[in-house]
Amino acid sequence: MPQGKPLVVPDDGLTTRQRRQRALLVVHTGDMKGKSTAAFGLALRAWNQGWPMVVYQFVKSAKWKTGEESAFRALGQAHQQTGQGGPVTWHKMGEGWSWIRKRTGDADHAADAREGWEQVKRDLAAQAYRFYVLDEFTYPMRCTGRGADPAVVAAADLVVEMTKIKHPMDAGQKGQGGIEW
Amino acid sequence: MPQGKPLVVPDDGLTTRQRRQRALLVVHTGDMKGKSTAAFGLALRAWNQGWPMVVYQFVKSAKWKTGEESAFRALGQAHQQTGQGGPVTWHKMGEGWSWIRKRTGDADHAADAREGWEQVKRDLAAQAYRFYVLDEFTYPMRCTGRGADPAVVAAADLVVEMTKIKHPMDAGQKGQGGIEW
Repeated sequence: MPQGKPLVVPDDGLTTRQRRQRALLVVHTGDMKGKSTAAFGLALRAWNQGWPMVVYQFVKSAKWKTGEESAFRALGQAHQQTGQGGPVTWHKMGEGWSWIRKRTGDADHAADAREGWEQVKRDLAAQAYRFYVLDEFTYPMRCTGRGADPAVVAAADLVVEMTKIKHPMDAGQKGQGGIEW
Repeated sequence: MPQGKPLVVPDDGLTTRQRRQRALLVVHTGDMKGKSTAAFGLALRAWNQGWPMVVYQFVKSAKWKTGEESAFRALGQAHQQTGQGGPVTWHKMGEGWSWIRKRTGDADHAADAREGWEQVKRDLAAQAYRFYVLDEFTYPMRCTGRGADPAVVAAADLVVEMTKIKHPMDAGQKGQGGIEW
């Protein structure tokens, strides 16, 4: 991507510096792999900038996506030990949101997802972090995990669609550690 | 993505286990952001699996993409200190490939890129690592950085195209740290 080369300069009264620091809503959508991985790749840059970051994973199972979680927890520890990068906070729906101490009865995924969104709104209002990853957030919104809600796309600043050109499962390849999880 | 649900089972004589462990060539292409970030997101999973990984960045400048580099160097250090994850090796063309001790005269990007590819081939032949990131590799191949060579797509197992739906620079937003680098 070209760095800092806007096609038009808007008449919004903002300075270049202000425009560089404006909050961005970035959406990765589409039917192909790479949505979560691209989001976590961006989070690497945020970590390196020293930005306090938070991840809310809207996943049903505690066993999903442990790769990214382990790596970012290690980066959070590196920050604590050496001051490099930024602090990392990680919330995962599948194991019960960490700010909820106990669950009565079976998991209610719809209620859990709503509660996750309420916490996101609280954290945004408090400006508790500078980089927010809402992983699998389209799932509770649409129950498919693939298509972003049109209202989210309308609100977003940057929307990337991941499109399949070729997928190994079409040729009978099995999912595998290090690639799928 | 569904995990491990192939659409067809090929008549290749391989066991499920063998098919899970077959080498994959994954290509991220397209005119939109997210190609490198998706590759480095995948690398997080590889790191967490304990796979020795290597990155070759085919970038002209030593100043490009320092965010990912810093984060993965921290993960490599974490591995050395705690044994978590895997070892990380990082090569960057823009500062001169690390296996070349001295450069005579000005940088010759085309020659540097060819030398990088020669090292990739040597490392692949020696099975020196288990996960390889060739960042901006389409750049030396096509001199645009955007379109993957058809021969690469043909050889690949998985190809994802990043397509623009909306980009903030269209609305005059400036590139910014933590997002673009």
